[in-house]
Amino acid sequence: MDQKGIFRKRKPPLGSVPGTLSIDEGAPFPKISLIEFDRDFMNEDVIERVEDLETVVFATDKVHWIDVQGLGDEATIRKLGEVFSLHPLALEDITNVPQIAKVEEYENCMFLCLPMMRMEGDLVVSEQVSLFLGETFVLTFQERYGDVLDPVRKRMRRNSKIRSMNNDYTAYAILDTIVDNYYPVLQSIGNELEKLEEELVETISREKLKDLYSMKHKLAQLKRLVWPTKDVIGRISREESEYFEDQTALYLRDVYDHIIQSLDMLDISRELSSELMNLYLSSTSNRMNEIMKVLTIISTIFIPLSFIVGIYGMNFVHMPELSSKWGYPVVLVVMGVVVFIMLLFIHRKGWFRK
Amino acid sequence: MDQKGIFRKRKPPLGSVPGTLSIDEGAPFPKISLIEFDRDFMNEDVIERVEDLETVVFATDKVHWIDVQGLGDEATIRKLGEVFSLHPLALEDITNVPQIAKVEEYENCMFLCLPMMRMEGDLVVSEQVSLFLGETFVLTFQERYGDVLDPVRKRMRRNSKIRSMNNDYTAYAILDTIVDNYYPVLQSIGNELEKLEEELVETISREKLKDLYSMKHKLAQLKRLVWPTKDVIGRISREESEYFEDQTALYLRDVYDHIIQSLDMLDISRELSSELMNLYLSSTSNRMNEIMKVLTIISTIFIPLSFIVGIYGMNFVHMPELSSKWGYPVVLVVMGVVVFIMLLFIHRKGWFRK
Amino acid sequence: MDQKGIFRKRKPPLGSVPGTLSIDEGAPFPKISLIEFDRDFMNEDVIERVEDLETVVFATDKVHWIDVQGLGDEATIRKLGEVFSLHPLALEDITNVPQIAKVEEYENCMFLCLPMMRMEGDLVVSEQVSLFLGETFVLTFQERYGDVLDPVRKRMRRNSKIRSMNNDYTAYAILDTIVDNYYPVLQSIGNELEKLEEELVETISREKLKDLYSMKHKLAQLKRLVWPTKDVIGRISREESEYFEDQTALYLRDVYDHIIQSLDMLDISRELSSELMNLYLSSTSNRMNEIMKVLTIISTIFIPLSFIVGIYGMNFVHMPELSSKWGYPVVLVVMGVVVFIMLLFIHRKGWFRK
Amino acid sequence: MDQKGIFRKRKPPLGSVPGTLSIDEGAPFPKISLIEFDRDFMNEDVIERVEDLETVVFATDKVHWIDVQGLGDEATIRKLGEVFSLHPLALEDITNVPQIAKVEEYENCMFLCLPMMRMEGDLVVSEQVSLFLGETFVLTFQERYGDVLDPVRKRMRRNSKIRSMNNDYTAYAILDTIVDNYYPVLQSIGNELEKLEEELVETISREKLKDLYSMKHKLAQLKRLVWPTKDVIGRISREESEYFEDQTALYLRDVYDHIIQSLDMLDISRELSSELMNLYLSSTSNRMNEIMKVLTIISTIFIPLSFIVGIYGMNFVHMPELSSKWGYPVVLVVMGVVVFIMLLFIHRKGWFRK
Amino acid sequence: MDQKGIFRKRKPPLGSVPGTLSIDEGAPFPKISLIEFDRDFMNEDVIERVEDLETVVFATDKVHWIDVQGLGDEATIRKLGEVFSLHPLALEDITNVPQIAKVEEYENCMFLCLPMMRMEGDLVVSEQVSLFLGETFVLTFQERYGDVLDPVRKRMRRNSKIRSMNNDYTAYAILDTIVDNYYPVLQSIGNELEKLEEELVETISREKLKDLYSMKHKLAQLKRLVWPTKDVIGRISREESEYFEDQTALYLRDVYDHIIQSLDMLDISRELSSELMNLYLSSTSNRMNEIMKVLTIISTIFIPLSFIVGIYGMNFVHMPELSSKWGYPVVLVVMGVVVFIMLLFIHRKGWFRK
Repeated sequence: MDQKGIFRKRKPPLGSVPGTLSIDEGAPFPKISLIEFDRDFMNEDVIERVEDLETVVFATDKVHWIDVQGLGDEATIRKLGEVFSLHPLALEDITNVPQIAKVEEYENCMFLCLPMMRMEGDLVVSEQVSLFLGETFVLTFQERYGDVLDPVRKRMRRNSKIRSMNNDYTAYAILDTIVDNYYPVLQSIGNELEKLEEELVETISREKLKDLYSMKHKLAQLKRLVWPTKDVIGRISREESEYFEDQTALYLRDVYDHIIQSLDMLDISRELSSELMNLYLSSTSNRMNEIMKVLTIISTIFIPLSFIVGIYGMNFVHMPELSSKWGYPVVLVVMGVVVFIMLLFIHRKGWFRK
Repeated sequence: MDQKGIFRKRKPPLGSVPGTLSIDEGAPFPKISLIEFDRDFMNEDVIERVEDLETVVFATDKVHWIDVQGLGDEATIRKLGEVFSLHPLALEDITNVPQIAKVEEYENCMFLCLPMMRMEGDLVVSEQVSLFLGETFVLTFQERYGDVLDPVRKRMRRNSKIRSMNNDYTAYAILDTIVDNYYPVLQSIGNELEKLEEELVETISREKLKDLYSMKHKLAQLKRLVWPTKDVIGRISREESEYFEDQTALYLRDVYDHIIQSLDMLDISRELSSELMNLYLSSTSNRMNEIMKVLTIISTIFIPLSFIVGIYGMNFVHMPELSSKWGYPVVLVVMGVVVFIMLLFIHRKGWFRK
Repeated sequence: MDQKGIFRKRKPPLGSVPGTLSIDEGAPFPKISLIEFDRDFMNEDVIERVEDLETVVFATDKVHWIDVQGLGDEATIRKLGEVFSLHPLALEDITNVPQIAKVEEYENCMFLCLPMMRMEGDLVVSEQVSLFLGETFVLTFQERYGDVLDPVRKRMRRNSKIRSMNNDYTAYAILDTIVDNYYPVLQSIGNELEKLEEELVETISREKLKDLYSMKHKLAQLKRLVWPTKDVIGRISREESEYFEDQTALYLRDVYDHIIQSLDMLDISRELSSELMNLYLSSTSNRMNEIMKVLTIISTIFIPLSFIVGIYGMNFVHMPELSSKWGYPVVLVVMGVVVFIMLLFIHRKGWFRK
Repeated sequence: MDQKGIFRKRKPPLGSVPGTLSIDEGAPFPKISLIEFDRDFMNEDVIERVEDLETVVFATDKVHWIDVQGLGDEATIRKLGEVFSLHPLALEDITNVPQIAKVEEYENCMFLCLPMMRMEGDLVVSEQVSLFLGETFVLTFQERYGDVLDPVRKRMRRNSKIRSMNNDYTAYAILDTIVDNYYPVLQSIGNELEKLEEELVETISREKLKDLYSMKHKLAQLKRLVWPTKDVIGRISREESEYFEDQTALYLRDVYDHIIQSLDMLDISRELSSELMNLYLSSTSNRMNEIMKVLTIISTIFIPLSFIVGIYGMNFVHMPELSSKWGYPVVLVVMGVVVFIMLLFIHRKGWFRK
Repeated sequence: MDQKGIFRKRKPPLGSVPGTLSIDEGAPFPKISLIEFDRDFMNEDVIERVEDLETVVFATDKVHWIDVQGLGDEATIRKLGEVFSLHPLALEDITNVPQIAKVEEYENCMFLCLPMMRMEGDLVVSEQVSLFLGETFVLTFQERYGDVLDPVRKRMRRNSKIRSMNNDYTAYAILDTIVDNYYPVLQSIGNELEKLEEELVETISREKLKDLYSMKHKLAQLKRLVWPTKDVIGRISREESEYFEDQTALYLRDVYDHIIQSLDMLDISRELSSELMNLYLSSTSNRMNEIMKVLTIISTIFIPLSFIVGIYGMNFVHMPELSSKWGYPVVLVVMGVVVFIMLLFIHRKGWFRK
């Protein structure tokens, strides 16, 4: 179970000057791609030199989406910050991942960061997406190559509604797609949990207990990731902002509803996992009861019998019963009576019932 | 127990264009019926062609209730959307079931969706009802054939108060009836729980534990279904809206009170189920205590006795007691004394008390 | 324990026309009494015909308190509704008991309903009181004959302060008396709980566990009854209303404080009952520990001894110890040493300490 | 442990006229003392006749603090009420103790009541202090003789800052001193708890469990006493009031901070006590495990051995092993092997590890 | 584990005059250092006589940071209070440590106090920092020598951005550095917890349980220390204040985000520790189950066998089986069958499965 993948610890540069960028050693080198389009025109480009983007910033006639994948080079990030006049604190937030989802309005643009999740095989892969929405551009930063945004690109190519809208709609489309991808991740965990449920009902084992425990841990972390996005999206969908037009706000409210549904599913899973812990504990108690009942039934019947036969195993010279002809059969009968009484007693206690 | 029936997972079309309708394969074909009435007139019709409804939209003289049962045909839904100028996001919400209960005010109508529940035999059947309240129409979408709204239809036919009111009152009547039907569902679950309570007090069994567990699960899901309806109805009963007249708002507040009472009953059931889990655990502990007491009493009495008789079962040649005439009776007396002491000890410990 | 008496299930007439009165079969026939007074005058009457009250409605010179006990006749209730122009939804709330405590302001009067509780012997009897405060009248509906309001009547007869005040003060006096009567009910439950506490500390029994469980259930239900009254009284004491004068509002705040104190006592009882459950569980564990310790001490000492005596009970021909003169005493000494070691071991484990 | 001392039940006079004073039988007779001072003058007096205070009410040149200890005489209380024009509901609150801490602004004065606590030896003594702050007087009522306010009196005598301030500062000084005295009470309970913690870690006993339980009870009651004072002091420190000057409000905020710190300490103690309960339960489980391990080790080793020696204790005539010369030693060796296997098995299970 | 170091009890001087300074006996003597700088100038000084600071107060051209380490001399503190005109209540808060984090705006300056934490080896060292931000100075008080603020000093020396900003930015830099240092403390505890987790999964021991318990205690205390700082920083970052310029407020919001992240990490650790407690309990139950299974298997197999061999150990003269040639082998076979049946029974119960 890849817990680390979901929730890494943030590395705050201790006492450093605000605005310090903390670049991970293994972080991939930034790949910058540009998509520009309007209703009739669409162009995709790979940008090699950041300076080439300078013209883009002032071009108001088209929608420009600049997507940066990989944060492995400080110089590139800094230059992008200069070209798009990004605030130093925002730049810091891009690289000092993972941040808690947030939104901040700076002078020339709105800054959003939120987690992006996808399944890679059985693993949950989570990274941080930072999005800047300016007057003339949408600028996104991702930690790694590869993302969940291909459907958005396809819609741009397909000349669908997105082509005739402004860049706030593009920002919406990106947010919507990111949030939509929370759901399958949660669903896969929900399925794991249901499988675990069936197994727990069948057998009691330490392995399952540990699985359940790490599942709870995972769910707690997911909640912490997804919960703040609710406030972020909620805020930009309610508050009037110069960056989002009114009709887009309606769509953002739809994104908000989807987050609510994801959180709802998360809560159900969390509740289910807590109930499973209870069920497990109760089952253990039940099992113990059954085991003890068997032990006690066996002991209750045989310990008195063993005592009786022990008596007549004594070697006293003067034990009249021993030499009596009826001694042996009488003892057998007595033991039969004892067994009967004990069985009756156990039956009365209800221990034979399951 | 049909958990799936109460709470199905929503299928969000990943990264799809907003407004995509997700039609279930097995969903029934839409049946459209129209009821139009005023104080003196009442007509019920089955609509075959959606186009026939176009005149209805602009007819301001009567109340029109268009009821669509079954969401199995995208073309029909889309055409209805066109005829009544429904917002694409609302259309999406109709089909991408189940939604969390919500209300949204669009330009030309108010959109409400909330869950409808009814008992079919022992099973809880839940589906989503979407309601559009426009200036001239009430338009409802249901997932399946058959509903709980027959009493509303009967009141319309009976020429009761509803006939002399506007279409906001019809919308109220529909909402009221849907909410009223939460109660019997909750009551049936409450009854199940009380039956379970009695059984749990009687016997401790793994079956009952699992029943209790799935009951808790069910209650959690019901809470999640019903809880958001509180906010929805609360909002439309408090806020002034152009679609609901002031005097109808008073009636909506009554619906709100009914939801509060349903949630209250739900909470009592939830609390009861938690207490039952505790009771179960305590009972198991109790039971274990009883079992252990029996085992310990039997062992405490007989294990020392067995040791004593074991001594005189030894085959040493030189054991003076063995050949003594009083050996056997003395040992019997000693054992009697031991039993007496042990019984006294057990009595002091209070283990004979229940 | 009369749980049903405290919290009955509401019978909502499914899908019925709003305003339907649901009359219980066994409900007593309405008895109507009228008290009218001013500073110098006081008259008590039993009203046979509802029509006789018509003049009362418009008489502004005196305070009129019309008290209706028993809801068993729909016609009477309806006629009262007509005479005092009560809203149909309020009429419905009177009869569809029990409602959750609430306050509603209608055009011509304020409508309050809240629970009334009293002890009848060991039983808690709870019923719903509905109170209408109009310009010229105070109208109360009670479910059964007999109530807790006699002190109010006595004060009216005694020519105390209430006689020189308006009808809002009469309404206050009624509310105050109802709320004051919550306290002894809670106190009697608190006493039961304290008795249970002492018993639980003494003995562990399934009976006590069930008592505790049903006590928790009762407390949960009482909380649900009393909690909403807090909001109701809080609202009418804070908000300016045309029906309550400013100086009476000060008195209502006093009623509010009393409810807070009742809820406080309820919460202490609830917390106490939860702690008792914990105490019970811990005690069971303790008890089990003690039992197991005895079993283990007995077994630890005697099982090895039994093995030793078993060895010399074997019938081998060639066992040199058996024929040795010192065989028997040596074995006895060895067993003494084993016992000593075992006792030391047990002592080290601290099992002899309580 | 004197639980009763901390939290007594309130005696509401059932259905009595509002303003009824409920005088406890054993309550001490009121002792009235007057301190009047300004910057240059200071006088302490014992007041015998309440009428003597009438001039005080209108004397605006000095600060007057009238302190009443003991509530045992209704006439005196009533006369004080007349002299200072106290509202009947406030008078009721003085005597119907204990009230929940509250503040009420009447026409001619502000009324505050809050709990006063002090340690008398090991016991917590708690009583209610009622404080009236009027234009020209500070009037306090205490339930018993003796209080925690001597430091305030000393400061008045010492000609410190308090002498040059108005009567709102005197009220503040009283409140501050009362609240400061919560802390040592909480600290003494915290110490008790820490002692209990050490003992619980050492031994598991029913006595300690009961101590812990009663400690939790006590803490819950203290929380209920102290919690409402937070709101009361918070309110008078924030809201502008004609009775407190702006610069005194700053000091009241300091009192507020002290209450927050007391509540904080209380919460730590409560959390600690809950954790102790958990620790206790886990320790019990641990202990049980240890006991069971010993029992099982002993049984696992000796029960099979006893069976083996039992075999050769059988008296069959035809048992070839018995007459064999090597029978006895072989059996001994076999038993040694069995012991070795069993020890290996137990070692593998890890039961020898602590 | 140094619990005392994190959370000491506050010593409120009982009933003392407000403004009393409580000086700890062992507290170090105050060392006062002054850093003054502007863009082009920077000077560090050790101040011996408090009077030397008088000129500083009115020097508006530079940023002055006066740092006082050690609170061991009342006279020095009082003199500082006079020189900088600090409010007596603020002076009291400096010395009566630890305070709960708070902010207060006085006439001439803003007063903040919050906890500072650092690791010294394995120990968490926590002390209180009080900060006054006036028009012309930043004044900090620390309890001990040594702090976490060296990075701030270095930045001042390095002529970085801080040199060209006003003293509100210096205050921000100090707060930022203090808050940044919470994180490594929390991280070290998180690591301890993860180590504990691994150990708990391996073995069940009383030592680990106590470690876990004290860890929970520590986390609770840390939460109480850090939680109030959130409100304090949140308030100064949101509210407009004359002491913080608008552009610094943006940086304070960044500090606020860091606190949120620290609290988030703290919550994860707290949740983890609670889950560990559950895991521990479940593991104990599991372990008990395993032990009981072994005991019961051994007993179930051997107790009946011992009974059988006991029968033929009886010394009755008339026991035909004893003299039969096939007696012994038949008994052996019977015992084999019994063992087989018992093993089958145990296998059916599933006790051989882990």
